[in-house]
Amino acid sequence: MTADDTKLKNPDNPKRIVLAFSGGLDTSFLLLYLRERYGAEVITATVDAGGFSKEALEAIAARAAELGAVEHRCVDARQTVFDDHVRYLIFGNVRRGQVYPLCVGAERVAQARAVAAIAQEVGADAVAHGSTGAGNDQVRFDGILRALCPDLTLLTPIRDEGWSRQASTAWLRERGVAVADKTTDYSVNEGLWGVTIGGKETHDSWQGLPEAAWAWTTTPSEAPAEGKALVIGFESGVPTTLDGVAMEPVALIAALNQLGGAHGIGRGVHVGDTILGIKGRVAFEAPAAAILLDAHRELEKLVLSRWQQHTKEHLASTYGMLLHEAAYLDPVMRDLEAFLESSQQAVSGEVRVHLCQGRLTIVGARSPYSMMSAAAGTYGEANTLWTGAEARGFAAITGTQARLARLAKLQGDAALAEKAGEKSALKAVAS
Amino acid sequence: MTADDTKLKNPDNPKRIVLAFSGGLDTSFLLLYLRERYGAEVITATVDAGGFSKEALEAIAARAAELGAVEHRCVDARQTVFDDHVRYLIFGNVRRGQVYPLCVGAERVAQARAVAAIAQEVGADAVAHGSTGAGNDQVRFDGILRALCPDLTLLTPIRDEGWSRQASTAWLRERGVAVADKTTDYSVNEGLWGVTIGGKETHDSWQGLPEAAWAWTTTPSEAPAEGKALVIGFESGVPTTLDGVAMEPVALIAALNQLGGAHGIGRGVHVGDTILGIKGRVAFEAPAAAILLDAHRELEKLVLSRWQQHTKEHLASTYGMLLHEAAYLDPVMRDLEAFLESSQQAVSGEVRVHLCQGRLTIVGARSPYSMMSAAAGTYGEANTLWTGAEARGFAAITGTQARLARLAKLQGDAALAEKAGEKSALKAVAS
Amino acid sequence: MTADDTKLKNPDNPKRIVLAFSGGLDTSFLLLYLRERYGAEVITATVDAGGFSKEALEAIAARAAELGAVEHRCVDARQTVFDDHVRYLIFGNVRRGQVYPLCVGAERVAQARAVAAIAQEVGADAVAHGSTGAGNDQVRFDGILRALCPDLTLLTPIRDEGWSRQASTAWLRERGVAVADKTTDYSVNEGLWGVTIGGKETHDSWQGLPEAAWAWTTTPSEAPAEGKALVIGFESGVPTTLDGVAMEPVALIAALNQLGGAHGIGRGVHVGDTILGIKGRVAFEAPAAAILLDAHRELEKLVLSRWQQHTKEHLASTYGMLLHEAAYLDPVMRDLEAFLESSQQAVSGEVRVHLCQGRLTIVGARSPYSMMSAAAGTYGEANTLWTGAEARGFAAITGTQARLARLAKLQGDAALAEKAGEKSALKAVAS
Amino acid sequence: MTADDTKLKNPDNPKRIVLAFSGGLDTSFLLLYLRERYGAEVITATVDAGGFSKEALEAIAARAAELGAVEHRCVDARQTVFDDHVRYLIFGNVRRGQVYPLCVGAERVAQARAVAAIAQEVGADAVAHGSTGAGNDQVRFDGILRALCPDLTLLTPIRDEGWSRQASTAWLRERGVAVADKTTDYSVNEGLWGVTIGGKETHDSWQGLPEAAWAWTTTPSEAPAEGKALVIGFESGVPTTLDGVAMEPVALIAALNQLGGAHGIGRGVHVGDTILGIKGRVAFEAPAAAILLDAHRELEKLVLSRWQQHTKEHLASTYGMLLHEAAYLDPVMRDLEAFLESSQQAVSGEVRVHLCQGRLTIVGARSPYSMMSAAAGTYGEANTLWTGAEARGFAAITGTQARLARLAKLQGDAALAEKAGEKSALKAVAS
Repeated sequence: MTADDTKLKNPDNPKRIVLAFSGGLDTSFLLLYLRERYGAEVITATVDAGGFSKEALEAIAARAAELGAVEHRCVDARQTVFDDHVRYLIFGNVRRGQVYPLCVGAERVAQARAVAAIAQEVGADAVAHGSTGAGNDQVRFDGILRALCPDLTLLTPIRDEGWSRQASTAWLRERGVAVADKTTDYSVNEGLWGVTIGGKETHDSWQGLPEAAWAWTTTPSEAPAEGKALVIGFESGVPTTLDGVAMEPVALIAALNQLGGAHGIGRGVHVGDTILGIKGRVAFEAPAAAILLDAHRELEKLVLSRWQQHTKEHLASTYGMLLHEAAYLDPVMRDLEAFLESSQQAVSGEVRVHLCQGRLTIVGARSPYSMMSAAAGTYGEANTLWTGAEARGFAAITGTQARLARLAKLQGDAALAEKAGEKSALKAVAS
Repeated sequence: MTADDTKLKNPDNPKRIVLAFSGGLDTSFLLLYLRERYGAEVITATVDAGGFSKEALEAIAARAAELGAVEHRCVDARQTVFDDHVRYLIFGNVRRGQVYPLCVGAERVAQARAVAAIAQEVGADAVAHGSTGAGNDQVRFDGILRALCPDLTLLTPIRDEGWSRQASTAWLRERGVAVADKTTDYSVNEGLWGVTIGGKETHDSWQGLPEAAWAWTTTPSEAPAEGKALVIGFESGVPTTLDGVAMEPVALIAALNQLGGAHGIGRGVHVGDTILGIKGRVAFEAPAAAILLDAHRELEKLVLSRWQQHTKEHLASTYGMLLHEAAYLDPVMRDLEAFLESSQQAVSGEVRVHLCQGRLTIVGARSPYSMMSAAAGTYGEANTLWTGAEARGFAAITGTQARLARLAKLQGDAALAEKAGEKSALKAVAS
Repeated sequence: MTADDTKLKNPDNPKRIVLAFSGGLDTSFLLLYLRERYGAEVITATVDAGGFSKEALEAIAARAAELGAVEHRCVDARQTVFDDHVRYLIFGNVRRGQVYPLCVGAERVAQARAVAAIAQEVGADAVAHGSTGAGNDQVRFDGILRALCPDLTLLTPIRDEGWSRQASTAWLRERGVAVADKTTDYSVNEGLWGVTIGGKETHDSWQGLPEAAWAWTTTPSEAPAEGKALVIGFESGVPTTLDGVAMEPVALIAALNQLGGAHGIGRGVHVGDTILGIKGRVAFEAPAAAILLDAHRELEKLVLSRWQQHTKEHLASTYGMLLHEAAYLDPVMRDLEAFLESSQQAVSGEVRVHLCQGRLTIVGARSPYSMMSAAAGTYGEANTLWTGAEARGFAAITGTQARLARLAKLQGDAALAEKAGEKSALKAVAS
Repeated sequence: MTADDTKLKNPDNPKRIVLAFSGGLDTSFLLLYLRERYGAEVITATVDAGGFSKEALEAIAARAAELGAVEHRCVDARQTVFDDHVRYLIFGNVRRGQVYPLCVGAERVAQARAVAAIAQEVGADAVAHGSTGAGNDQVRFDGILRALCPDLTLLTPIRDEGWSRQASTAWLRERGVAVADKTTDYSVNEGLWGVTIGGKETHDSWQGLPEAAWAWTTTPSEAPAEGKALVIGFESGVPTTLDGVAMEPVALIAALNQLGGAHGIGRGVHVGDTILGIKGRVAFEAPAAAILLDAHRELEKLVLSRWQQHTKEHLASTYGMLLHEAAYLDPVMRDLEAFLESSQQAVSGEVRVHLCQGRLTIVGARSPYSMMSAAAGTYGEANTLWTGAEARGFAAITGTQARLARLAKLQGDAALAEKAGEKSALKAVAS
């Protein structure tokens, strides 16, 4: 790589554009708009991060063809979403604001990386996406695409030129393209690690979401009253079995989304800070995330030292913040992943979970690496690990510093008061 | 204060002992044992941290008199528990291991401080408590008592001499004192901020607690199906109103424990690390804590900056760890409290909560200090805070460092590979 | 305040502009340019953060008058720089990258705040500064001015229109304004907390600064061989005395810059990350900062608990990062200041310092709050604080968790190996 | 390993004891005392962590033989000290209290691990060391030995029985063993990573060390006036070359201790917190550590992202604290090492250092992975990475949150004031 490589190819006159394509209004508009404006070939790229059915993917391909894409690429990124993102989110028990499992942030990064790879493969000279200027996704897409394709022009006319949904609808209709009227109040974004729902009530922090707006989960009170007991197995922090049956993580997550959803598990609402500094409120349903994050966390409590837990909690929170804020390519993320990976060596075992009408209970956990069992198995009753006299020594010495700090405070205050007294006395004498 | 003051009064021959007294087996034994062994006057001190009924307190006083206490003191420490502990736990949204609201740790500290104050007041030369050598409480009691009463002898024969429950029961019965047989498998510890339950199943990490073992809460599935909607008001982080009615925090917490318990809210099981390094598992019910911590956290999301939230999350976790680990008197705790206090200036507003059959939902929140409202109210649609071009500039520059890091990596790898190649070539030429 | 207040006054046609003015090329150009372009009144504002002599300030005022400012304001912000910034930098022992005392970041914030106050006072409808688009200062100025003057238009033509020094020089000369040719290779920025020097060698990370380029400090080898001994007194973290004589902090800092400089103290070179993501290298001289930060840090070691030091170190690093990165108005900064303020209660005492030919030695420190003295004074020889048996108990129990973790690892590995062996055996049987 | 393995072998009657042996008073006493008391075979183990000359090691072996050791083992642990400890201390730029390079903590751990390995090898049933009950070393030795040799009895009579130097001297002399009178006021502890000096002045925080007490370094003012220029090369964070010549790290460190010492580099005094909670003050000389830590830190500034630096600074401080506090075997240390290792991938390059009369200057640094060069090489002048307009957009949006926080504060205060006013008005009407 030389400095020349970083110069953009055809910045003003791209001939071959890769467009991140979902088949929705924005990207349909872009497909036509980029073709018309630049007379360029447009390759559409749809990246499945777990949110598309087979039918939906076929419909998207058809739409791309219909609107004149010279080629349509569809990438199944679910394994990448797990391997590069969800895995670490589980290792870190990451929930933004202790609530939101960070579905969208991880998926956007995987999507942008896949689009960048396609752009390189097909020899594009530009790459385009349909993000607006309001939210986080533009920063995630731009960051990844600029870093991984430094020689490609980045085209984002919806943001840069401020195209509203009304305007792009009109533009398309002028050209005879059928655009369905908006039929829902909510914008729904589905993926492997959950679905987010925004619109109407989410804009008013005082309002809850109506029952009808939820996408994946059964109304808790209408879920089966008998509930469902599960056992989830982990190996080095990765979920690998469900009720004793080995499953690939992606399939296991899909199964838990299904199962958890049927029992009304995983709903939430979160107010978060966007990268650009405003607050945003979003509802989400993430049954698998809810189950796996709780189960994993409780398994960890058996096998990690207190210092591992305390340190990991802070680092994982930082990891989540940086992933959310589009810093995935910052090398610190690899360093944090190295920490997280190392911390999982003993996180193997099984967790009993009970799902019932929206209630998620971690019943128990066990592990061959359990420090609780190690103490009990080896020493029997806990108090044979040490004598009462040793415990007394420990307790006495543990408190040394607080004791000295208090003593020093009393002595210092007394000394300064005396000194002040002397000064006052001197003044009194002098006057 | 001089060095002499820290010498112990009558270390071997205490005449006047203050005993932390609950009326249970251990402290009943101690009352008699200390009287017999030292021929000393024993003043019993019972500190109500929210776990005693009026009847229970009367029974304790009677028991103390019956067993020969020269004086019995009873202190209502509930306000102190709130002011000095629970307040900061709410400010910090503190849950150990993201689960356990740290009921016991806070209460023990308040109790030990009250006992220390009584010991000073009554001119004791020794102070005693009934902790065993197995757990955290000995470290908390010892730490506080040694720091606040450095000149008093600390008497803990149950730990130091290793008295088992069987042995102390026998010892008491020999002296004609009636001791009830143990009638329960669980040891239950009640306080303002929750109740903990240990025993039987909690010793096996794989087992859940049977329905009968829970102390405060209705079985979720048997709670009223219609549930209960609440509005909780906060002023600078402190809960001050329930459904619009002003209440003192202590009363509000008691009311929420009642209300939440009736709807099956606040159960949990936590595996924690004791100060002495072994794992301990405990079940708990903390309806008020569950409601207030969730409500407070969601209110904060409206009014705190992302840096406040990120920094506070880490500090609060440290605060909880140190409180748990008996470091309450370390001056860093005052510094952390100053941070937490400062962070609450804008945490005023109301939170809508729904309780239903064990499900706790934060429906919504609002605040005059809402940053979400500030943006919306002032700028209308979010995207009028900046133009698309500004957003593009922001997104481009935000990614600079990750972009440069990747470029430097490629350049560095290429330079080193070239250098390695030159070396190989030189070797080839030389050979 | 209502939403209307945030609308800009005369955004396109400002009548009354406050210009942050240093009298240099950029701001001289701006003064004329803004007058010419908008036909507006320009009020110049010079904020002394410790970097101007009396003569320099007079020359600046004369230049402003000469170039047609309707009014010139000069603010002495040194006390503010100390009270609101340097004070906390001392409390936190803040050095960016463990080297750079963060001179510029703090001063820019103070300057921007003063300019904002003037703009409000004089009823301006716009505010202007001369930062380019390359560095940190634009972000600091913009951030403060947009937050504190949300209704004023922000004018930054040098950045926005990309005026180079050559272009603005030519533009001024066309209008008959005398502009001196550039006579130095370095850009020097002086303030209370130090001077920074950029240019030539600082752009090449391999090069050191030539002796002639240093601005404040004597060449170390040429400084007096006998050196200079000092005693600095602190009260609650604030430096208050020099050799026993009470001094105001601002005067004390000025004196130490003088004194330290004469002994070759306080030089450094730092490579830092700009807010926009690129690396920048800067030389600096900060004699007073070098002395006070080292002295304060060593005094703290006597009086703070280890938890105070560990927590403070991390928070102070965050505080420095955020101050550097223009986040001064983020409310988290007030929370961090509350922590820092609280941590200083016992940081009173005296520190012996020796300066000699570029070497800064902290000889010793003492404090009425010394925890080292408290232990020694009260308990004599350290080991009378506990017995050997107590120490043995402490050491044994302190290691519990690492011991259990290792035991659990061995047991877990053995159990899994056995299980794997069974599986292999089963397979062997089956085949 | 089974539970039975953790039972101690011959706890009361050890037959074969491994003794950590330095040949000094304490361990000479122990050798004889353990033989006499238990009639046991004693194997002496001397572990060279870089602090012994060949002659010293021979004298120790002779002493062991003379006092009746059945076998003497000598282990060269210098490579282990580097590989397992110093390497990570360099990666983390670890200085306790920003001053002390943590010489002793690392070496004790290496020594204890080597002693444990010998005890296993020779089939000992007990292991002994000579630490007193006052300091950190007992906790480090006990922790490692108990964890790695859970079935061996730990013998520490000097601590447990409180043997003073006078008492053990007398005991030895009674038995005809020659013991030299104490000839120095200082206790000196030498190792690969530095030498520590304690005694006399170090016990009084106000006193500096007299020139004669320093062990390794030339008096700065008497060092060669011309100084010495060096170039140190690093590969992935490990120092590998000196002035272009490849060297093994251990040899390189020894050379820098020599070279730096000759130029008066690396002296310091540090007040630290012992694990048992009291303050301790120690002087040290660590020329190689001073040079390598500074050089490495400045190289990192060229190649690490700001998030790497900020995160690593905090983690490295935690790593140093835990290593100091005898937590080396806690699994979190492996996790932190994984982070540190990962962070060093790009830390390759060269650093120019100048040593002169006690002054250590990092003149410059360069790296093929330099992010400073990447930006400059690719984009020329920094400001071509973005336009002025983009920078303006970035600066505007970066400040969004602080701006909104301030606006929300004003609005909230106004709303609450209005509400309070209404209440007052209502009261006024009512009265």
